[in-house]
Parts: sequence; structure tokens; C-alpha cells
Amino acid sequence: MHTLDVALGERSYPIHIGRGLLDDPAPILARLKTPRVALVTNDRVGPLYLERVQHGLERAGVRCTAVVLPDGEAHKDWPTLNLVFDALLGARCERSTTLIALGGGVVGDMAGFAAATYQRGMPFMQMPTTLLSQVDSSVGGKTAINHPLGKNMIGAFYQPRLVIADTATLDTLPDRELKAGVAEVIKYGLIRDAAFFAWLEDNLERILARDPDVLAQAIERSCRNKAEVVAADETERGERALLNLGHTFGHAIETGLGYGEWLHGEAVAAGTVMAARLSRDLGWLGEGDLDRLVALFERAGLPVQGPKLGAERYLELMAHDKKVEDGRLRLVLLDGIGASRVSDAAAPERIAAAIEACCA
Amino acid sequence: MHTLDVALGERSYPIHIGRGLLDDPAPILARLKTPRVALVTNDRVGPLYLERVQHGLERAGVRCTAVVLPDGEAHKDWPTLNLVFDALLGARCERSTTLIALGGGVVGDMAGFAAATYQRGMPFMQMPTTLLSQVDSSVGGKTAINHPLGKNMIGAFYQPRLVIADTATLDTLPDRELKAGVAEVIKYGLIRDAAFFAWLEDNLERILARDPDVLAQAIERSCRNKAEVVAADETERGERALLNLGHTFGHAIETGLGYGEWLHGEAVAAGTVMAARLSRDLGWLGEGDLDRLVALFERAGLPVQGPKLGAERYLELMAHDKKVEDGRLRLVLLDGIGASRVSDAAAPERIAAAIEACCA
Repeated sequence: MHTLDVALGERSYPIHIGRGLLDDPAPILARLKTPRVALVTNDRVGPLYLERVQHGLERAGVRCTAVVLPDGEAHKDWPTLNLVFDALLGARCERSTTLIALGGGVVGDMAGFAAATYQRGMPFMQMPTTLLSQVDSSVGGKTAINHPLGKNMIGAFYQPRLVIADTATLDTLPDRELKAGVAEVIKYGLIRDAAFFAWLEDNLERILARDPDVLAQAIERSCRNKAEVVAADETERGERALLNLGHTFGHAIETGLGYGEWLHGEAVAAGTVMAARLSRDLGWLGEGDLDRLVALFERAGLPVQGPKLGAERYLELMAHDKKVEDGRLRLVLLDGIGASRVSDAAAPERIAAAIEACCA
Repeated sequence: MHTLDVALGERSYPIHIGRGLLDDPAPILARLKTPRVALVTNDRVGPLYLERVQHGLERAGVRCTAVVLPDGEAHKDWPTLNLVFDALLGARCERSTTLIALGGGVVGDMAGFAAATYQRGMPFMQMPTTLLSQVDSSVGGKTAINHPLGKNMIGAFYQPRLVIADTATLDTLPDRELKAGVAEVIKYGLIRDAAFFAWLEDNLERILARDPDVLAQAIERSCRNKAEVVAADETERGERALLNLGHTFGHAIETGLGYGEWLHGEAVAAGTVMAARLSRDLGWLGEGDLDRLVALFERAGLPVQGPKLGAERYLELMAHDKKVEDGRLRLVLLDGIGASRVSDAAAPERIAAAIEACCA
């Protein structure tokens, strides 16, 4: 087991990474406020892992309430969130009860937002079961639900007390979801870690083949990158925005097609290619680097072109982005592999041209 | 104009109290992040004051989006909150846009929760227009909506950047609402300020007659008490719970009758008498002090008896309270006028007996 710390003063917390961690309740027990837990999962992950986690806790004398949500990004909405509140209130969960998210990014985002707002805040822990959530969404305290007009539009910054990433859960992850997670792994290399990007070029096939050691290394390096960024800028006033490379384009794809059509990681891959192409058009990113990143996404089986929504529709959807300031779109752009910045330098026509060039 | 400060480190903010403050946009302008504001009000307060506030800001070059909600505690729910999100997204409000609540406690609680969660948090200001919100809900950062199973069950701690209490708005306040606000004013005397309680005994009729100077004094003293408590305990781990005197009983009344039947302050008055009677039964509060507080509520035209829901139903509703810990109900009880504590010492049968004795 490897342990990383996210350094956020009194809100600091550890991330444990390793095989078989779901079976060991000890780290959870050490951080419970009271012996009372609500386990939030979905109807795909629940049947695989809920009983194991729940029994481990119950054997240690912890009273558990399980909440099983419908699976999928299409359910990351208020009515589904309200199922959590109904269950918490129905089971008389208190504000000292700990809420544990067991599942992927959608479960984590929703459960985290429920924990942030139930009785104005209850303790929260994460047990991510997808590559995407292990390397990204379960670290850093961003929680949210979607609104029909925009992804993650309603949410809170709310830090977990503990993250347990059991890499054995990836054994059952569908290929498509594994690849979607790889998109966020590649992102860390692109925005700030050129050596990691080169390592990924050398090891991509082993990741896709689920080599446990290589996967664990990729997860740890990704989490380390994310933890450093989050520790420096918890609420995204500066550097943290770099983590959104490809996300403004990607969210437009997700919202434009309807939540759940494309996986988040797939949309981020295509969105990153758009951002990279725009960076190239601005003269910031070299042709060779653009080719390298497109090639790596392609080897990972990820889309490098977006759906044909029309550039105008993309721009309209992107105008709702949280990084818009004074009406100007602020995008994460690349200066090279491992070098990125937030900029509002690109004019709408330039952005539109990059989008058009990257749609099929 | 009087100004008080709520001392919360980097989240500190001023409360301005005085007549005619709605017409002066200067304090708002000094604290805006960008010249962009969303004004949230309701269909009762909006027609009275919205135009004045909006015009003042627009004359100073601020772009305003107005959101008018249906009035009343019955609308302090998710569908109404979502009207705010719809409006903010529809008008392309950004996370740097400042949300200003113009109205009473319900508007403030909902607008505050919207500000806390729109794009994970936008700047927030309060312009309370009722006595209750001027002395209580607009100070201290508690935001929430109701759930059918419990009042204020979903919310966040989220501090405003500025509170402007224009006492002239009380001129148009219905008598019943003025009295409901007096219940929270009396509360400050009961929990921690015996001299203020005695002053209220001397000045109650002048408050009810809306003597501007006496009202302003009552508001300022109430806010000062609240600001001190909140500064010492922002997220209610200790002393802040004392502000909930009468509220656990009162919330049961509000939830049990259906939100909006009784005003919050009315429920708090009857609930405080229940808490006081229980304190007397435990031998903590003298008979003379119990008589004094009942007499003051009666002079204020506030209910000193709760509705006959049955003690069992009260206890069931109270079991959802946020102050329940390890299944035990923690109540604010009185040791005297101006002296209170949080205690789980009262057995359910004792609580039931006090409720029964205070219902008509």
C-alpha cells in the first residue's frame, strides 16, 4: 500500500492506494467520528463490493445504512441526489454520521455534495472504484451535480477525510471506462509532468493490459500531481484551473450530446485535442508535440475528434463554463508537453476554427 | 448608521444598520468583485424595494439580473431554489457575479444556499427586510432549504461579504411578522444577556409601536450578541448551539403543521416556553424567571403554547434535529434569565411532559 497526503492544513487527508484495500476497515475506523456510516453506491458497483465493505464495518461494530443510486452521468441530478437525503433522513443519520462514497466519479461527486450539504455538512470519505475517480475526481474536494444547462454547475468544495483507492476494483472495470480514465492520466503529463508523459508513452499498453504494478504507478503519480496542485490552490483561484485541460470543450460535448452519451474521459480526450490544436494555431505548441499527444490518445483508444455539434453550439455551451470571467472564455492551453497556462487570448473565431478542425 | 463587524478572519464582514440604507449602493460597490449582480427577492418584497436597489446599482454601472421567487416558508424548497439556478444560468451569471438577497429569512436562506453552491460558490451579500432576518438569519452564514422530513436539513455554512439592514423596511412589515421577529430578539436576552432582557421588559411596547430609535437599538444589540457567538464558533461545534434556544421544539411545530402555518418566530416563542418549562422541571430555572419570560412573550403577542400535535409526534419530529448526537436529543436549556447551556440530561418522558403541559 502507498499513502499520499493532500496537504490542506486542518483539512489534510491521506490517499491510500493498493490492492485489496476494500477488505480492511481499519483506516476508516481510525477516522470515524461516531460508529455510524452511510454507504452511497450505485446499482452497478453495489452488487460487486457493497457487501464486503459493509460487513467489514459491521463486524467492527459500525452501524451502516446503504444507499444504492441508479448508475450513470444521466442521473447526476437533483432527483437522484434527493434519494440520498431521503435515505439519510429516513435512517436518522446525524450530522456526525460519516458518508462514504463507493463507486466512480458520478457516485463520488453526488455523495460528496450530499455530505457537504446534509445538515450543513457531515464527515465524508471516498472509495473510488474506477480509474478516472482514483486518479481525479475523488481527490481534491470538488463535488457537484449537473444542471440541464451545464455540467457540475451546482456543487461545493468539500474535502474528504480519507480516500481509499483499491486497485483490485479495476479488474472488473469495463474496457471503455478504463480508457476513459487514461485520458485524465495523460492530462497530468500534459499540464505539468513531461517525464510522466514520456513514461506513459513507454507503458501505455501495459496499463491497458491492466498490469497491476504499472497501473498502481500510474495512479500514484497522477494522485501526486493532483495533490500538489490542490494543496497549492484549493478553491481554484489560480493553478488548479490547469487541471481542467480539455474540460471546457469536453463539458460542451457532454452537455451538448446529453449527459451519459460520451464518458467524461472520452470528452476530455477530444477536448484536449481541441485545446492542443488551438495552442498550435496560436504558435504556442509545436507540431511535433501536437502529433505526440494525438498519437497517445489514439493508442489508448480514445476519441481525438469531437461530435459535429457545430462550432457555434460548442461556443454557446462553453459560455456557461465556470471559468468564464467578464464574458471572456478562459481556456487551459499548452506551451509544450508538460507546460500549460490559463489564457483568454484566443478570440472566438480562432476557438471556432480549432473546434471545426477537430470534429468528425 | 451603525456598523458592527463579524470577526471571522479572512471571512470577516460588516453589518450596517440604519434608516434609508437601501438607497446607498456605495458599500456594495466597494465590495463587488465584478460589476455584475444577481438580486434575489420575492413577490412581496420585490414590488416594494427591488427597483430602488436595482436602479442605484445600475446608475453606478452594475449589470443586474433580478430573480423574484414566490413568497413564504412553504417555498423554501428545491424547486424554488432551482428557479434561482435557472435564472443565473439563463443570464450567464459567472462565479464572480455577486448574489444579493433582498428580503426576509426565507429569501436569505435560499439565496445564500444558491450562492454557496452555484458554480461551487459565488460572492454573497444580504439586505434583510424583516426584523427576524435583521437580527438573526442574515448574520452568521447559515443557509438552507427545507426537506419534507425536516427544516433546514439541506444547506451550508456560507458567509456573506456584507449585510445591510435598512430599518426603514420595517415600516411596511405586517404586525404579525414584527412580533415574530421580537421572539428572536428576546432569545438573545434569555441565552446570554440578562441586562438586554431587562431592557426589553422596559421597552417592549416602544418596539411594537416601531419607535425607530428603540428598534434600531434592539437590532444592534441583537446583532452584537449574535456576532460574538458566531465569531467564537462559526460552524456550531459548541457555544453557537445556544442560539437555537426553543428551535428544536419550534422546528417540530413548523414541520408538524406544514411549513408556513406558523411563522418561525411564533414557533420559536412557543418552543422557548417548552424549553423553559423543562428547565424549571429539572430544577435549573426558577419559577419567577419562568413567569418573567412567559409574560414577556405574552406582552409581545406571541404564542406561549404549542399546537396539540401530541408529545409523541413532537418527539418523532425532534429526533430529526441536527443537534441529535448518538441518538440523544441535545436541547438548549436555561439556568436563569441570561444563562443557558446545551444538555442531553432530560429523559424523553420529561421532555414529553413539558411539551404536554405547554400545548393547548
